[in-house]
Amino acid sequence: MNSDPLVIFTPSGKRGHFPVGTPILTAARQLGVDLDSVCGGRGICSKCQITPGYGEFPKHGLTVSADALSEWNAVEQRYDDKRGLTKGRRLGCQATVQGDVVIDVPPESQVHKQVVRKAATARAIKMDPATRLYYLEVEEPDMHEPTGDLERLARALKAQWEIDSLRCDLPILARLQPTLRKGKWKVTVALHKGHNDKENHLLDIWPGLHEGGLFGLAIDLGSTTIAAHLCDLVTGEVRTSSGIMNPQIRFGEDLMSRVSYAMMNPGGDKEMTNAVREAIDTLAADIAKEAGIDPSLIIEAVFVCNPVMHHLLLGLDPVELGQAPFALATSEAVSLDARDLDLSAINPSARLFLLPCIAGHVGADAAAVALSEQPGQSEDLVLVVDVGTNAEILLGDKTRVLACSSPTGPAFEGAQISSGQRAAAGAIERIEIDPDTKEPRFRVIGCNLWSDEDGFARATAQTGITGICGSGIIEAVAEMRIAGLLDASGLIGSAAQTGTLRSVAEGRTNAYLIHDGTADGGPRITVTQGDIRAIQLAKSALYAGARLLMDERGVDHVDRIVLAGAFGAHISTKHAMVLGMIPDAPLDKVTSAGNAAGTGARIALCNIAARSEIETMVRDITKVETAIEPKFQEHFVNASAIPNSADPFPILNSVVTLPDVSFNTGGGEAGGRRRRRRG
Amino acid sequence: MNSDPLVIFTPSGKRGHFPVGTPILTAARQLGVDLDSVCGGRGICSKCQITPGYGEFPKHGLTVSADALSEWNAVEQRYDDKRGLTKGRRLGCQATVQGDVVIDVPPESQVHKQVVRKAATARAIKMDPATRLYYLEVEEPDMHEPTGDLERLARALKAQWEIDSLRCDLPILARLQPTLRKGKWKVTVALHKGHNDKENHLLDIWPGLHEGGLFGLAIDLGSTTIAAHLCDLVTGEVRTSSGIMNPQIRFGEDLMSRVSYAMMNPGGDKEMTNAVREAIDTLAADIAKEAGIDPSLIIEAVFVCNPVMHHLLLGLDPVELGQAPFALATSEAVSLDARDLDLSAINPSARLFLLPCIAGHVGADAAAVALSEQPGQSEDLVLVVDVGTNAEILLGDKTRVLACSSPTGPAFEGAQISSGQRAAAGAIERIEIDPDTKEPRFRVIGCNLWSDEDGFARATAQTGITGICGSGIIEAVAEMRIAGLLDASGLIGSAAQTGTLRSVAEGRTNAYLIHDGTADGGPRITVTQGDIRAIQLAKSALYAGARLLMDERGVDHVDRIVLAGAFGAHISTKHAMVLGMIPDAPLDKVTSAGNAAGTGARIALCNIAARSEIETMVRDITKVETAIEPKFQEHFVNASAIPNSADPFPILNSVVTLPDVSFNTGGGEAGGRRRRRRG
Repeated sequence: MNSDPLVIFTPSGKRGHFPVGTPILTAARQLGVDLDSVCGGRGICSKCQITPGYGEFPKHGLTVSADALSEWNAVEQRYDDKRGLTKGRRLGCQATVQGDVVIDVPPESQVHKQVVRKAATARAIKMDPATRLYYLEVEEPDMHEPTGDLERLARALKAQWEIDSLRCDLPILARLQPTLRKGKWKVTVALHKGHNDKENHLLDIWPGLHEGGLFGLAIDLGSTTIAAHLCDLVTGEVRTSSGIMNPQIRFGEDLMSRVSYAMMNPGGDKEMTNAVREAIDTLAADIAKEAGIDPSLIIEAVFVCNPVMHHLLLGLDPVELGQAPFALATSEAVSLDARDLDLSAINPSARLFLLPCIAGHVGADAAAVALSEQPGQSEDLVLVVDVGTNAEILLGDKTRVLACSSPTGPAFEGAQISSGQRAAAGAIERIEIDPDTKEPRFRVIGCNLWSDEDGFARATAQTGITGICGSGIIEAVAEMRIAGLLDASGLIGSAAQTGTLRSVAEGRTNAYLIHDGTADGGPRITVTQGDIRAIQLAKSALYAGARLLMDERGVDHVDRIVLAGAFGAHISTKHAMVLGMIPDAPLDKVTSAGNAAGTGARIALCNIAARSEIETMVRDITKVETAIEPKFQEHFVNASAIPNSADPFPILNSVVTLPDVSFNTGGGEAGGRRRRRRG
Repeated sequence: MNSDPLVIFTPSGKRGHFPVGTPILTAARQLGVDLDSVCGGRGICSKCQITPGYGEFPKHGLTVSADALSEWNAVEQRYDDKRGLTKGRRLGCQATVQGDVVIDVPPESQVHKQVVRKAATARAIKMDPATRLYYLEVEEPDMHEPTGDLERLARALKAQWEIDSLRCDLPILARLQPTLRKGKWKVTVALHKGHNDKENHLLDIWPGLHEGGLFGLAIDLGSTTIAAHLCDLVTGEVRTSSGIMNPQIRFGEDLMSRVSYAMMNPGGDKEMTNAVREAIDTLAADIAKEAGIDPSLIIEAVFVCNPVMHHLLLGLDPVELGQAPFALATSEAVSLDARDLDLSAINPSARLFLLPCIAGHVGADAAAVALSEQPGQSEDLVLVVDVGTNAEILLGDKTRVLACSSPTGPAFEGAQISSGQRAAAGAIERIEIDPDTKEPRFRVIGCNLWSDEDGFARATAQTGITGICGSGIIEAVAEMRIAGLLDASGLIGSAAQTGTLRSVAEGRTNAYLIHDGTADGGPRITVTQGDIRAIQLAKSALYAGARLLMDERGVDHVDRIVLAGAFGAHISTKHAMVLGMIPDAPLDKVTSAGNAAGTGARIALCNIAARSEIETMVRDITKVETAIEPKFQEHFVNASAIPNSADPFPILNSVVTLPDVSFNTGGGEAGGRRRRRRG
């Protein structure tokens, strides 16, 4: 039996006997307990805070006496005076073992913290970033042993952190000598080791102990918008999220028009590349300002995007992506330096990582969704749908995952819609239409009241009511269908057919008037027949893609559906199903994953193993190409209708009833309405 | 006994039995015979030419019949028609084994060719460059298997060349797709694998078979001049050598004044960095033009230089090198991209390699000399001296090598000399002084005649006689000493003391008139007392450095001396020994190595193993710091005299006799002359 005191760590449960005088940090390291330290046990970084437990621990059969640890010492007192130490806490590098003791490692002292994600269904992110801080004490140079400063720094890294093989680029090497001298041979370094790297890459260096932290950007580079999360690379916390329009829109709203622009204009691809890189730089600078951090502390960025954006970001001509066989220049993950993409707002040595693409039409954004939603880990068959300007669709379970991309166009984002607009204050985002009166009520972004509630006019006086955003148009079309203003073919009835003056003639077709602000100089907001057609095309593409994967898999239903992207955040599931955007599924089996692509980027930013994981995952996914599959066209044509009782949507019937109306453009009477049978 | 035909390769002597129909190239590969191929046996690169031997081979006990190889085929005929195949040669990939045969691999078909160096004493360079060409046939993309073009190229590399793990930077990735399509999926790639690299780095790509070759630059970056050799990376041949002045001279003639410039002028180091990088770019462009090659075919460059130039080239502030303890930012070898040094004349993806520095005062140039001259492989004790603006000195044998650097200043290069000039047409480079008449005769650069030979005036009319270069001043001082115009302390005698009117008074001291061209508007060329002092300081520094190493090693003589740099090329060994520049050694044990630093650079360029070798070698060298060693000062002061009979130079006495003169500045009679005893 070991006569040395027993040290038990919680929550890990790891335990061992250590000689009297062993620092708790040392004991933790020897047992492989996850206890953080940047300064390597010198009592200056305070990362190794622990909470000793005293008294009876019947579970462990242990009584911990008040003198189980060494006395509070001067280093701890100094730290407490300077920054304050939570009561009951000790510094693990200062407190030494004197007797049997139970030591709790609080979450903030763990290196591999679990970052809880908002979506309860999804896994937590384990913090294990590629870039970390290390505090070092470097030997001074000696004329009799004339190694370079970099070699002595490497030696300190080996001796103090057991880290081998260092790589240092010229810009950091140029700062090495003055920084070492300024810090009196004590420095903090940021070391990056990518998942495939053999070497540790020295990305930055600060004199003394650097306490400003380190940050990374998870960037979801969409065709229309660029969204970024600024993540603390130590805690995993998202400090700020921000977005910016993709300036490439001026070269073409959708991807294919941008590819055309590159094909038709010599140097056009370079123009678009420069535009998007500048926008990312601007976004990075803005987000750092908003978070109040020095932008040079942004030391990593992870990008997810579709293949065309992927190529345009990298400066690769996307022309091959515009024609069969849609060959990517590279499909694997790409690791780069900030300077490779001319990014200057963030740390010039920052390392960038682009997730792999799945295929020429299924990009790194879809890969990110796969990383976030893990269809390949699912016991039941799950359909994951991410709607942006393109829809990324994944179908699978533990046995096999299939993926495709469907060209929905930007209608779901409010573009190509007569009164459409981006999701911004003043945009109609929710609509309800009374099936009896055919009167609408709605809500606009920036106001929590419905339009028929008291105070709505006052509350929206500032922003006005400016248009309909993506979620608004989807609800509007679905509500029109439910209210019998629209027949199953997608035709809007005339005032005579619908019995409401909100059905207004526009040329040879009809429109539905949601809001007329012209009296106050505002817009007249309608849903036109053209809008309905745009939504029909978009939803047919989306639906056809999902059906194609189901055909490939040989199934005619899925067990559950995960809605990602704009869907989860803003689009009502019920209305999406009324429109027939997604296959039929019980409502309680349809969940929202929020911005899953962005989450995938964040996972890859915070956890280095996830980068290897997604590379493997992507290789294993079965790629289905919608553009060459005749069945896609077939499904597309068949999906054009907005479901009625004749459609094979048994589950939808339990959710909502649809009127069985039919309008003719040449006039005629309104179709009859009848309740559909449930079940 | 194997019934398959026997194939014997010469000169390797490797042999084996192969089934009828085996291509010779295949047989060679299986036996590990060094037979080149870029196209991988497709009959298009012609690198695998072999010469079959027919008839009796008694040495091998073999009779080779005329049908031992398959018949000359259409591929060979096409190649012969197009480019011509030397008579008797076959293509190793086309000719197949039909019977016992002896195959000679001519030197130009060997991958690891031996490049014979001019200096007979030194080893040959084995061709094994870091960058090579490979011809590939890449699978076309397929929509049903949507890997990227890069991944398919990597797959071809694995299948056709057994090369794994490829790395590709963005600029090449951007050219990948058009090049693959232009070459109809057949391309040649240049792959680089550095001695410490795990990955193969794709540096360039050409459609089809690239036949333009690949080149590298070996650059000796001196304080005063920058010299470059353009080497064929396939044959090892030096295509062109060229040089350019180091434009940093305008910031300071010697290294310390450049360090001072950097210290005194904010941004001064950047100015000097930009100047030297631009000069290298210019030199590279010029040398490519001179050789008639596309500069983008220069895919590698190796640099050797002293520590200050090393830092200034890399953009590192050299300030620490100007003060004890002379800490280098990095002492190890440095691998870079061309863009890291803003080099734009050569291939933008070119890889650069800087040899390691030995110490803060002993640079990569000394390391290159060690690589070229291999003192650590020497059975006897060798002193290697490389004179530039600094002298690099190595002393050693198999047991141990020591190194130091000595601040000789630029006097040996003709700088800081009253009539001094760079070695250029019109400069006096050789001088003899008649000991009886005290009359000089000399030769100038650009003319093979001595000044007292017929036609000299006519031959030099164009260039004139403009000054004295480094080798000229050394000969002049030594000849003045031999002729009794100079005493052992270095004092020039007056006309009265020396008995010649060529001794002219200049202020309180005397000068020796070599040439007076004033009548024709030319200069009056003298050696002044100040010139003598400058040479004395320089040679004392050099001598003291060598002595210091000898002290460290505990010896008072060396077995042999290797003179490198300007020494070997231009400075007369005899005169150097008269001056006491180098320790005493038998003249037949003093050899010249030419530009050993440049040769070291060329070795590291052509042979990748040499890069690891020099890294190990540098670690094992004992560094001796002249600046802090009190004995250096002592040796320096003692070495000031120009040897006379009292000096401990027994061997010198067998070479030349020195007059035992002594002059006083205050006038007095000329010292007597007597012959020194031999032996």
